[in-house]
Amino acid sequence: MSMDRLLENIMRKQNPTVAGLDPKLSFIPGHIKEKCFEEHGKNLEGAAAALLEFNKGLIDALCDVVPAVKPQAAYYEQYGWQGMRALAETIAYAKSKGLFVIVDGKRNDIGATMEAYAAAHLGTTDVEGETFEAFGADALTVNGYLGSDGIEPLLKVCSAHDKAIFVLAKTSNPSSGELQDQMLHAMYEPVYRAMGNMCQQWGLKLPGKYGYSGVGAVVGATYPKQLKEMRKALPNTFFLVPGYGAQGGAADDVAPGFDKHGCGAIVNSSRGIMCAWQKEGCDPKDYAGAARREAVRMRDEIMARLGGISLPAT
Amino acid sequence: MSMDRLLENIMRKQNPTVAGLDPKLSFIPGHIKEKCFEEHGKNLEGAAAALLEFNKGLIDALCDVVPAVKPQAAYYEQYGWQGMRALAETIAYAKSKGLFVIVDGKRNDIGATMEAYAAAHLGTTDVEGETFEAFGADALTVNGYLGSDGIEPLLKVCSAHDKAIFVLAKTSNPSSGELQDQMLHAMYEPVYRAMGNMCQQWGLKLPGKYGYSGVGAVVGATYPKQLKEMRKALPNTFFLVPGYGAQGGAADDVAPGFDKHGCGAIVNSSRGIMCAWQKEGCDPKDYAGAARREAVRMRDEIMARLGGISLPAT
Repeated sequence: MSMDRLLENIMRKQNPTVAGLDPKLSFIPGHIKEKCFEEHGKNLEGAAAALLEFNKGLIDALCDVVPAVKPQAAYYEQYGWQGMRALAETIAYAKSKGLFVIVDGKRNDIGATMEAYAAAHLGTTDVEGETFEAFGADALTVNGYLGSDGIEPLLKVCSAHDKAIFVLAKTSNPSSGELQDQMLHAMYEPVYRAMGNMCQQWGLKLPGKYGYSGVGAVVGATYPKQLKEMRKALPNTFFLVPGYGAQGGAADDVAPGFDKHGCGAIVNSSRGIMCAWQKEGCDPKDYAGAARREAVRMRDEIMARLGGISLPAT
Repeated sequence: MSMDRLLENIMRKQNPTVAGLDPKLSFIPGHIKEKCFEEHGKNLEGAAAALLEFNKGLIDALCDVVPAVKPQAAYYEQYGWQGMRALAETIAYAKSKGLFVIVDGKRNDIGATMEAYAAAHLGTTDVEGETFEAFGADALTVNGYLGSDGIEPLLKVCSAHDKAIFVLAKTSNPSSGELQDQMLHAMYEPVYRAMGNMCQQWGLKLPGKYGYSGVGAVVGATYPKQLKEMRKALPNTFFLVPGYGAQGGAADDVAPGFDKHGCGAIVNSSRGIMCAWQKEGCDPKDYAGAARREAVRMRDEIMARLGGISLPAT
């Protein structure tokens, strides 16, 4: 099962972190941009080529350190279909290096439309009997506002193609409480808990051998109290934890997301890793080295807090 | 303002309906597919070419009947970046024919990431000082689960580029109530109403000259009672109403979404129009004619119920 593969990657590398690949041109060293613009022009194609080359350098430098990468779809979409091609090529390259790929797309819809998103990102697309992988990630982030009609089509594809999803529960941003913290009258619990409970239920259809199902939840590092409460309430729901680093979360804030085995969560850092070369002020040609140094530092900081990671008994 | 342009299109054509462009290969007549597969191969590129040709035929046949089209991003994404190119080309073609284009992407994220989605679909993308339109729709559907942090970046882009958004409030699917109908303890109103109230508030930043702001809401035809209640409660929020036709909504069900001027809502039909040729059993070469006949029938059915459409006084 897909989530099992992520857990095994985390265990093997003793690193519960994921590197976000959210490339903007301003994060990319000049020598890469110059080369790509010279080859393709100063246009969306040139920009997309620069994203891909930047990502490949990061993936090469990170692939023996981190278990997973998380490209954020928005950063590719803004460069048009050329950017979406760079997304597909980034995913393929990361997978070829043994990385688990979570596409952060926060997709949501119902019925046949959700089936189309599932085919796009996790399954395959049929063209008159021939089968193609459009984007081919290992997992996709999704938004559960529409209820089960938006999730069931994904569960079928996850089951058939060995994939996983992460449903937004408590997001890391300051205004997440406007809706997510509201108490529900009938349940006397907040919206994010109700969404977490739905994840736990949906997950029953995708059981995993280490106790964590194929339906994970997104719970932000910026709300450690809620993270702790959710970890306790949802024993079979694996957490994707954004908000570490640039958004203010630290090792102490993410620790409550883990179980007693040091398992149960994976912590994302995007700008912290991608822009490490700018923060370090190192030679821009060493941007991937700087990313690796930051990924190692982050791993060591979180692992010092956790002690070690073992897989829950099967 | 963008929503004003939509209202004026609706008024001019005396038609408050939007044609969904959600193409699947099984909806496309054989002669189009054969030609495209011959030219490009039986692959994602061939499929994407068939989507585009199918859409162009529909747009040509519909552009003097309907005020707007609504391509659903999922159906293009499932054909990879080649499908996303077909989406961009579909949008450009529809705009060249005077149609208002609503991309149904239900995108959602926060801060810089939401800015990237806004740039992708509504704004422009900067490449070293050169400006490009990645997809260039007139409006985008979005999911407000993350709160204001997910909407504010869109409002800025809408204001700068004369665009609009539609936020999911009460969706048309059977399980929409799992979260959206839950009563909120503090407000003693359901989630969908709270989301509607947020739309009304966010809309204050994008006022329109006919009273409807640039922040619309999605409210399904399958819940006419809620549609009526929302129309009354949200006088400045224009509604995008899915669920007519294939999902079961009829003219009587959508009528409560309109104000006393016959304004205030636009009703979507996707499969009903796209697949009219299959339902009619006509010559597949006349698929666009069948789509037009169904669009006219739908317009006449809804207009008979409304009487006429006038724009609220400015």
